[in-house]
Amino acid sequence: MAPSSNGATAPALAVSTVIFTLRTCPTGEMKLALALVKRIRKPFDGLWALPGGPLNITEDLSAAAARNLFETTALQPRYLEQLYAFGNLDRSPGSNVLDRVVSIVYWALVGSDEAAEAIESENVAWFWADELPKLAFDHNLIVEYALWRLRNKLEYSRLAHGFLGERFTLAQLREVYEAVLGRELDPANFRRMVAANGAVVATGERLEGTKHRPPQLYRYDASVELADQGPLATQNPAIQTGEQK
Amino acid sequence: MAPSSNGATAPALAVSTVIFTLRTCPTGEMKLALALVKRIRKPFDGLWALPGGPLNITEDLSAAAARNLFETTALQPRYLEQLYAFGNLDRSPGSNVLDRVVSIVYWALVGSDEAAEAIESENVAWFWADELPKLAFDHNLIVEYALWRLRNKLEYSRLAHGFLGERFTLAQLREVYEAVLGRELDPANFRRMVAANGAVVATGERLEGTKHRPPQLYRYDASVELADQGPLATQNPAIQTGEQK
Repeated sequence: MAPSSNGATAPALAVSTVIFTLRTCPTGEMKLALALVKRIRKPFDGLWALPGGPLNITEDLSAAAARNLFETTALQPRYLEQLYAFGNLDRSPGSNVLDRVVSIVYWALVGSDEAAEAIESENVAWFWADELPKLAFDHNLIVEYALWRLRNKLEYSRLAHGFLGERFTLAQLREVYEAVLGRELDPANFRRMVAANGAVVATGERLEGTKHRPPQLYRYDASVELADQGPLATQNPAIQTGEQK
Repeated sequence: MAPSSNGATAPALAVSTVIFTLRTCPTGEMKLALALVKRIRKPFDGLWALPGGPLNITEDLSAAAARNLFETTALQPRYLEQLYAFGNLDRSPGSNVLDRVVSIVYWALVGSDEAAEAIESENVAWFWADELPKLAFDHNLIVEYALWRLRNKLEYSRLAHGFLGERFTLAQLREVYEAVLGRELDPANFRRMVAANGAVVATGERLEGTKHRPPQLYRYDASVELADQGPLATQNPAIQTGEQK
């Protein structure tokens, strides 16, 4: 990542990825979590950081983000979107300016079923989004911004689908919203919001295995995009992976 | 911009800026325009392109965008925001992959009074946003995306202020909306929308120089941010230059 070794005077370019999923706490509650890697070199040796690395010369930006995700968790994204390019001069205090790195950051959603089976090791782990330690570089700010983007988009998209199976109950959907927004929602208001939104469709089926009045199963209308990317939607197919792999 | 000369195998990094303003057509109508520069080297020699260039090693991203803007138009931005990082492998068809450039693109608003006095030359000119020629690289797509972002943000921000003086009539404000959205708006509906939005405040003054029933002057509530940047708003003061210079 250091450009100074070859005498270049341009900032280096890296791609990093904020990988969100929902995981079940010991209390049984679903909570928002993200995958981090422990740094094993300076600067910030020993601190946790977002997965990332240099962009290969023959690799698209979103492909580099998906590779980060795969190398870190062995998972494919349900949703992948560019977040922001972070390049402030002060993002690595104490480092030589010749070692400056501009990070193009993506954020990704992975399904909670898949995330439960994802790789964890001494140097790769899931952290609760609301209980992060001090991260390397400006990564706490990056996560804060990614959370803000996720929460904003959740309300006017079908992004919640990125965390769910194909069919789900309204209680499961509400659990996703509550985990992402970090607050409880009134079930009756939530039901009205979903009905008004129009992207969620009743399947006519009911949850199996429950004896008395099993809840209805719903699905998302696949013709509604996961999130509106405007003119970029058709340009970059990796932006929206759409349905489950 | 070419990294291959020093043997590096990483993509080069550039910053480009979409500079929007409103200008008056020969018909007297206000229309959205943007500043372009003519390329005088390969690739795309002779085509018009967004102003931009390499990022200096000691320069923040937004500072590079503001510098683009100043070098092109001798103007300061009223509003400056990061748009997106464009880095697809096919954005410069026919070029060697070793000459690949990733462009971090900003978009800016400049006031129409100032833009009327901006530099124009054989190689720098304002183009109507709805009458663009074929631009260099993927710059038509970039402009299309910037327009989409501007139009989306206009409706839930006070971005229109970037084009206006401190005090304005409702007709002037509607003219800005019509120019940006590219369609006529019903005056009564527009008045209701502005009243509901709450960011526009009556000053109690009236337009001078008109004889009979001069229209009321309004201002924006400066406590409302130009556009909501969430956690990034306080981080990067250049993102929102706020009031006029």
